[in-house]
Amino acid sequence: MFNNSVYTNRREKLRSRIKDGIGFFPGNNESPMNYQANTYHFRQDSSFMYFFGLNQPGLSGIIDFETGEDYLFGNDVTMDDIIWMGDQPSMNERGSMVGIKNVLSTDKLQGFLQKGKKIHYLPPYRGETILHLSQLLDLSYQEIKDQTSMDLIQAVVELRSVKEEVEIGEIERMVNVAYDMHTTAMKMAFEGTYEREISGVIEGIALAGGGMTSFPIILTINGQILHNHYHGNMLKEGRLMITDAGAESELCYGSDITRTTPVGGTFSQRQKEIYEIVLKANVETIKATKPGLYYKNLHLKAADIIANGLKDLGFMKGNMEEAVNAGAHALFFPHGLGHMLGLDVHDMENLGEDHVGYDNEVRRSSQFGLAYLRLGRRLKPGNVLTNEPGCYFIPALIDKWKAEKKFEEFINYTKVEQYKDFGGVRIEDDILVTETGSRVLGKPIPKTVEEVEEVMK
Amino acid sequence: MFNNSVYTNRREKLRSRIKDGIGFFPGNNESPMNYQANTYHFRQDSSFMYFFGLNQPGLSGIIDFETGEDYLFGNDVTMDDIIWMGDQPSMNERGSMVGIKNVLSTDKLQGFLQKGKKIHYLPPYRGETILHLSQLLDLSYQEIKDQTSMDLIQAVVELRSVKEEVEIGEIERMVNVAYDMHTTAMKMAFEGTYEREISGVIEGIALAGGGMTSFPIILTINGQILHNHYHGNMLKEGRLMITDAGAESELCYGSDITRTTPVGGTFSQRQKEIYEIVLKANVETIKATKPGLYYKNLHLKAADIIANGLKDLGFMKGNMEEAVNAGAHALFFPHGLGHMLGLDVHDMENLGEDHVGYDNEVRRSSQFGLAYLRLGRRLKPGNVLTNEPGCYFIPALIDKWKAEKKFEEFINYTKVEQYKDFGGVRIEDDILVTETGSRVLGKPIPKTVEEVEEVMK
Repeated sequence: MFNNSVYTNRREKLRSRIKDGIGFFPGNNESPMNYQANTYHFRQDSSFMYFFGLNQPGLSGIIDFETGEDYLFGNDVTMDDIIWMGDQPSMNERGSMVGIKNVLSTDKLQGFLQKGKKIHYLPPYRGETILHLSQLLDLSYQEIKDQTSMDLIQAVVELRSVKEEVEIGEIERMVNVAYDMHTTAMKMAFEGTYEREISGVIEGIALAGGGMTSFPIILTINGQILHNHYHGNMLKEGRLMITDAGAESELCYGSDITRTTPVGGTFSQRQKEIYEIVLKANVETIKATKPGLYYKNLHLKAADIIANGLKDLGFMKGNMEEAVNAGAHALFFPHGLGHMLGLDVHDMENLGEDHVGYDNEVRRSSQFGLAYLRLGRRLKPGNVLTNEPGCYFIPALIDKWKAEKKFEEFINYTKVEQYKDFGGVRIEDDILVTETGSRVLGKPIPKTVEEVEEVMK
Repeated sequence: MFNNSVYTNRREKLRSRIKDGIGFFPGNNESPMNYQANTYHFRQDSSFMYFFGLNQPGLSGIIDFETGEDYLFGNDVTMDDIIWMGDQPSMNERGSMVGIKNVLSTDKLQGFLQKGKKIHYLPPYRGETILHLSQLLDLSYQEIKDQTSMDLIQAVVELRSVKEEVEIGEIERMVNVAYDMHTTAMKMAFEGTYEREISGVIEGIALAGGGMTSFPIILTINGQILHNHYHGNMLKEGRLMITDAGAESELCYGSDITRTTPVGGTFSQRQKEIYEIVLKANVETIKATKPGLYYKNLHLKAADIIANGLKDLGFMKGNMEEAVNAGAHALFFPHGLGHMLGLDVHDMENLGEDHVGYDNEVRRSSQFGLAYLRLGRRLKPGNVLTNEPGCYFIPALIDKWKAEKKFEEFINYTKVEQYKDFGGVRIEDDILVTETGSRVLGKPIPKTVEEVEEVMK
């Protein structure tokens, strides 16, 4: 846990942005797996962690914007609990760890909420939380969803988007755990091994660090399938293995790193050619990252590098500026360059992607590919974001576009057809926007062709 | 997945037990971690798995007890899904894998449920499922909880309690994964290692098997704290490490094994003395396990062995038959001998522990210790259960009983006080009740003092 002043300061900053009512932050409870008492690893709500810092189930926090007081709700353990669960800090002790003097038992919560003040809360995303809010506030589920506070969303996004030094340290520590995860995966990427064996071992590394993974691991020799959580394939020489995986700390800060590894340890010529294009997009857009730029423009810069690289290899043709404007590159690079990263791997996604990644200056595009860009807005010092260009040969998408004769002026389908067994390449780092430019967070994880091949020797 | 006749037969057997209405089995959906799209490992509902065998989110099954028809509800993937998720079997293909011809899209479900037939469903345990049922059936949460079907609960318990050959094979395969988890933990149990490092590695082994752990791992040098999921301690010579952990297969069958390991590789004299008592309770009650016996009596036999062993060492005194009847042994052995095991680690716990482990013949005791016994009823061939006696020195409980002068005629508190730094011992195997006796499932996991010390050499 950070020093209690961290949490007090954050609550003060929030208070300076909202003038009426109270902010109500229900913490998460245990999440049942296959019956009530058999639960998943506990995961606290990220905004509760941000303002109240306590990583236990059964807590709620209130920030009173009118009186300046903060409240923590939760129950002390009983004698029976101590017998079964061992000694636990008291609620008063927990409160003082995060700078809160007003500590009340859970049965006081409903009465407190019914004092008639305006209640600001963030959009709930778990069934248990919706049920809980519905009972506490005597509203239907639909009303619960409709009455979330836009003022609170905007103020929380504003605060959480700019990372403090202590937060950057946590993320960097988790990139270092990801270093171990990714180099271990590379060393295991030989023919005959199953994807699940590697993903199991590297998830074990995240767990051994004391937290968990920051999202379900993607580890696949079918990288062209973007949302692929199937780990049942046996690795075969000639395939590329995409590993998209990160760790999460006990304070819930995460890393999110992708590497692409040639099964067997050596890139073939055609793998190397595509890999170098993606690497160039990653390296050049990281170099260009600085405050004041629109991330949307960095995304388009990556698209431009990929399109030109593919033109050099004969996959694309014509004017690449026009091709990228029209969205033709999205056949190969159909997702965004990146997203914010912090207490959530897609930071604050539950607050609404458009509230986090876009604003009145930059609106989300509806063009295929660009529409999937999660972050388009102007960068500020303290933003932490991912940089993750990719290049894929997706048979179903190639077939569809070819049948539709889509972008025939920009795409050489004859050449593309020959790569339907290629798979995909993605390279992802976690980047801090500094006052003057940017910095890749954490210990550098092997990334060039030479570095990756060296690890696998 | 098992052969489709397995599922057809199970549904037929259920139909032979309930004559009116329909059985409605909502499958589980994804479980959000910190926002809607960042989800835990998917875990299907166990009764849905039992009757409908499909391990994907977004499905529901209906068994019509009146017409003899079965129905599967779910949506086919779209072209977009194929682009992002790769090829998926169609819903009709999924239906035929589990012997179902009537396959309908999800939007047909609500109309089907509103035909006026009596709807039997099992108690929901996830917030998402309660919300879903509430919307489908137009009932409040309280009504949803109140209107679960006792007929369906009893019929499902009757079927799932007696395991088929294919189920026993799955459980046995998962005990073999637990073999690797436990022997790995033993080999890592040396001073200076952190609990989380070991629990991370062995959870990785379960994941590498293609499934997950069957419950959150307990791995602790404070085994006297029974519900201990804290993994932050560094191992120290002189402590015992309790590891209670099992794996779950892709078909959701689990194992549940406990071993106790001396940090450093050698049991001290006093550790060995307590360990041998628990081992005797485990071995003797397994030997005695056979159809027709009440599991409650096997629990009491274990209690008797532990009490007599502790009397020999001077922790207890007087008549041990009286002591066990009165519940004095529960200071050291405060939990039950075991529970059923199958698709859930506490099998069918969501259907109500008393419906699963007790019946009209045997009712749950209210005595401290015995009250925690999850399974008391008469054993049948095909039952799979855990056998997990333990002996602990729980400082908070010792202090409480001593202050209350509880069972002073049976307990030598002066001697007990000297063991407040001991920790605890538990040994657990998974047992099949056969026609004539019982069988320990899976590859034998090192259990005697000599076997455990040998692995750690």
